[in-house]
Amino acid sequence: MSSKKAVVLLSGGLDSATCLWWARAKGYTPIALSVAYGQRHSKEIVSARKLARLARAEFHVLRLDLPWLRCSSLMDAGKALPNIPLRKIGKGGIPSTYVPGRNAVFLALAASLADAAGAEAVVIGANALDYSGYPDCRPKFLSAFQKAVSAGTKQGSQGKGLRVLTPLLHLDKAAIVRLAGRLGVPLQWTWSCYKGSCRPCGACDSCKLRAKGFEQAGLLDPA
Amino acid sequence: MSSKKAVVLLSGGLDSATCLWWARAKGYTPIALSVAYGQRHSKEIVSARKLARLARAEFHVLRLDLPWLRCSSLMDAGKALPNIPLRKIGKGGIPSTYVPGRNAVFLALAASLADAAGAEAVVIGANALDYSGYPDCRPKFLSAFQKAVSAGTKQGSQGKGLRVLTPLLHLDKAAIVRLAGRLGVPLQWTWSCYKGSCRPCGACDSCKLRAKGFEQAGLLDPA
Repeated sequence: MSSKKAVVLLSGGLDSATCLWWARAKGYTPIALSVAYGQRHSKEIVSARKLARLARAEFHVLRLDLPWLRCSSLMDAGKALPNIPLRKIGKGGIPSTYVPGRNAVFLALAASLADAAGAEAVVIGANALDYSGYPDCRPKFLSAFQKAVSAGTKQGSQGKGLRVLTPLLHLDKAAIVRLAGRLGVPLQWTWSCYKGSCRPCGACDSCKLRAKGFEQAGLLDPA
Repeated sequence: MSSKKAVVLLSGGLDSATCLWWARAKGYTPIALSVAYGQRHSKEIVSARKLARLARAEFHVLRLDLPWLRCSSLMDAGKALPNIPLRKIGKGGIPSTYVPGRNAVFLALAASLADAAGAEAVVIGANALDYSGYPDCRPKFLSAFQKAVSAGTKQGSQGKGLRVLTPLLHLDKAAIVRLAGRLGVPLQWTWSCYKGSCRPCGACDSCKLRAKGFEQAGLLDPA
C-alpha cells in the first residue's frame, strides 16, 4: 500500500464507511479509529471493526468515559430519542441527540494518532446538510479545526502537513449512497440506527435520513 | 460562588495550579479537569486532586489510554528524558518530551465538559516562552482552537460563548511564580517534575525551568 497515510474516523455507519473507502481510492493507507464513548449500544463498534477488516485497515478502538455526555439523548437510554418529520430534521436548532463537543474530541484524538503515525490527513464524515443542527458539523468549525491542527502538531507544522478532509461535507444522503455504491463500500455491514436492536428501528432521525438517501438514489439498502 | 463557570485543565503542576487560582480570582466557579493519559507516574493526578480540593473546585479525572503516545519520552519509561542546558530548552526544535496532539485532545475534552456544563471558558496553562518547542503551546494553535470551539459547540455558538483563556501564555517562569504567590497558590502541593520519585529530580527540563523561575522571582520553592 501507499506510504501516504490517513486516519479515518470510523463509527461503523454509512458515512464513515464511505470515508474509509474514499481514502483508499485517493491512495491513502487508511488507519481506522473508532471511539467507544458510551453510546447507547455497541453495534457501531462491531460494524466498524468488520469494515476496517474488509478494508484491510489498521484499526484502533478507544474507550472513553465522559460522564458529562449523559445530557445527550443519544447517550442516555432513559431519555426519549426525537421522532420528528423528516423535513424538519436539522431545522429546529440543536437537537437533543447533539453530543457536546464530540467532533472536536474525535478530531483531536485522530490528529494525535496522525501526528504519532506520520499521517498526512484526518478524514471525518461530517455533513453540513442533513446534520445542519449540529454545531460541530459546520464548515466554519471544521476549517478552524484544520487551522488548529496545522499549527498545533508536529506533522502539521513540519513536513507534509496535516489536513482535515471532509469528503461528504456538502453531499446529500442520496449522493453519499451513490458515492458509496461507486466505491464498492460493503453497505450490508454498516450500521446507522441510533438504537442497538437486531434490526434498524426505521424511526430515528438517522434511519429516516438513510432510508431517504437510498430511496432518492434509487438503490435498495442491503442492511 | 459565581454562576460564571470555567473548566480549568489541571495537571497538578505549578502552571495549571496558578490557572486554577487565577480563574477563582477572576470570579469563575472553577471545574477542574485532569487527564490520566499514561504519564510515567501518577503523582501529578494526586497533586491535582489535592489542589482541586483546596480550591473547593468540582474535580473530574479522565483515564485515557492512547497507545500511540508511547513515541514520546514523557510516556515511555524505557526512553531517556532529555537533559540539556537550561539556555537551550525550547531552542532545538520539537523536544522528545512532546506528546503528539496532547493540548488539542485536552482542550477538546475541556470544551466538551464546558459545553455540557454551560461554562463560558476553558483555561489552560500553555506557555509560549519556556515551551516554545511544543507546537501545541503556540499562540497560533491556541487562537485557531478558540475559533473552532466558538463555532463547534452549543455554548460557543449560542448564549455567552466559550472562550479559551491562556493567562500564562506570555509570562516567563519567574512571572508565573510571582503571580502564583500573589494569588495564594499552595505551591507546596504542586508537582512539576517529569519523574515520579519521592522528591523532584532537579535535572529534567521541567525541574530546571521551575528552579530558574523561583530563583529569578527571589522566592524559595516550598515543594
